[in-house]
Amino acid sequence: MTSRLILVGCGAFARELINWVDDLVDLNKSIRVSGFLDENPKALDGFPYAVPYMGAISGYETQPGDKLLMAIGDPKAKKAMYEDLKAKGASFASLIHPSAVIAKTATLGDGVIVCPQAFVSADAVVGDLCAINGNSSVGHDVHLGSFSTLSSHVDLTGWVQVEECAFFGSGARVLPKVKIGANARIGAGAIVMRSVPADTIMYARPAKRL
Amino acid sequence: MTSRLILVGCGAFARELINWVDDLVDLNKSIRVSGFLDENPKALDGFPYAVPYMGAISGYETQPGDKLLMAIGDPKAKKAMYEDLKAKGASFASLIHPSAVIAKTATLGDGVIVCPQAFVSADAVVGDLCAINGNSSVGHDVHLGSFSTLSSHVDLTGWVQVEECAFFGSGARVLPKVKIGANARIGAGAIVMRSVPADTIMYARPAKRL
Amino acid sequence: MTSRLILVGCGAFARELINWVDDLVDLNKSIRVSGFLDENPKALDGFPYAVPYMGAISGYETQPGDKLLMAIGDPKAKKAMYEDLKAKGASFASLIHPSAVIAKTATLGDGVIVCPQAFVSADAVVGDLCAINGNSSVGHDVHLGSFSTLSSHVDLTGWVQVEECAFFGSGARVLPKVKIGANARIGAGAIVMRSVPADTIMYARPAKRL
Repeated sequence: MTSRLILVGCGAFARELINWVDDLVDLNKSIRVSGFLDENPKALDGFPYAVPYMGAISGYETQPGDKLLMAIGDPKAKKAMYEDLKAKGASFASLIHPSAVIAKTATLGDGVIVCPQAFVSADAVVGDLCAINGNSSVGHDVHLGSFSTLSSHVDLTGWVQVEECAFFGSGARVLPKVKIGANARIGAGAIVMRSVPADTIMYARPAKRL
Repeated sequence: MTSRLILVGCGAFARELINWVDDLVDLNKSIRVSGFLDENPKALDGFPYAVPYMGAISGYETQPGDKLLMAIGDPKAKKAMYEDLKAKGASFASLIHPSAVIAKTATLGDGVIVCPQAFVSADAVVGDLCAINGNSSVGHDVHLGSFSTLSSHVDLTGWVQVEECAFFGSGARVLPKVKIGANARIGAGAIVMRSVPADTIMYARPAKRL
Repeated sequence: MTSRLILVGCGAFARELINWVDDLVDLNKSIRVSGFLDENPKALDGFPYAVPYMGAISGYETQPGDKLLMAIGDPKAKKAMYEDLKAKGASFASLIHPSAVIAKTATLGDGVIVCPQAFVSADAVVGDLCAINGNSSVGHDVHLGSFSTLSSHVDLTGWVQVEECAFFGSGARVLPKVKIGANARIGAGAIVMRSVPADTIMYARPAKRL
């Protein structure tokens, strides 16, 4: 019996995660992605990854020592998948890229992913299965609800409160103490100055042609 | 007599600074925060910091070897405090997070703070007591006036000139060669294309609900 | 005959590059900028750089071992210069700042420059002579056309396709799968949600005065 690190889903985010895990190997940590679970056995065909297919997610059977790395970006799909897998006794891995900075007084939940150049500040609490993409930041005292996904360049400033399953597009920013309801979707570049109810979509104006 | 590193003010920014100082310790630098000055002796109650209270800021008496770390974000309050403490002979510490990048030809004033993932580029001049928060950048040839505060994700592009006590909200960006007057407040997400007079507030449009 | 690293153009971007090369020296890599080519022999006068003048770009004669570092930001000017120099048999250097993160499955062309705190993600293809400034990111599966320049804090999200000679201002962001035509100029802070034809200028609304 050997310990395995297994991707759940194998789209583009999974390919990023294979790279970021590889950067941990550079730090002499003997971690490698053992395989991937996906409906599509050919998900990596045409890409330069030697990561074997291990079957559909639904067919996964827990083995002692296995750690699952959630590679699904959509919060609701991620939550459903997590609950199914947890019911089977699965265990999840966290991944913190070596270039990311995590304040020692921040608290990260189960299976949290923090990508290159991101940071999590003092006394922030990041819920289970949250993904924080590159160059994003989680400010001091933020509570980030489980299953939430931050795209890249997102800024949750101090004391922001986010309920579960929120999604933030590229460069979205939320002002101090603002509350974001469950399942809210904050569009790319959106500047959120007031609290947002659950299940709400916020958007910014697109660029104009000169 | 031992050397002490003392926080001036103990709000959220101070808690961040305790973390960033701790990251310097990881680099085998024997620096620790010795205590904090604040009106409120209980400022750290309920938080996981073992940093002792050292009295109100107004009651601080300079001791040889002491270095003060300014943890106040508001530029005018910071300036007033700095001048009071300087009059007592106090000395200020700078803090550059190990993940920050400072061009060797940049010039940093007294008591400058540069947070994670930030950078200061070629030939920039950063005035005394400026704070540059995480993921922010100060472009080449920028002159950043003393006591100014950049929130996170701010971009001062090349040749920007900022007078003292300016404040920049999350993700504010200032285009090349633009001048920002003293005490100006540039709101979160604001894109500043033309020069801004002193004491002016600039803002960006907030996101809309779909 | 010794190997030389020579700047092509000596404006502000060149001064930044001298600093970033210097940061590689810190990693015990014995690289230094040997000199600069520019119409103006006094381009570094008044600045703290001990980099000698080596003549006009047009007068450069290729020597074995020389590596040119392109310090011109404007895409079209960069392309013209590159073609002239290539015709003389010149060879170009790439520069990746040590704080930048490049996915191992990304492909970088000839003479690519990646500045502090930037990252290039999985399976991205970055064309020849592209410059990626600080805190910017190139998402997974992006194709970035040759000679393109990203200012700082730019985010090209997943699957974005950019033709040659595009320019992106500070904090511009392009949504997934959007296509950007050749010579397009995307203004600072612009959020690009739909594909942009060649030779098009896109802009964002500037901040307003309160």
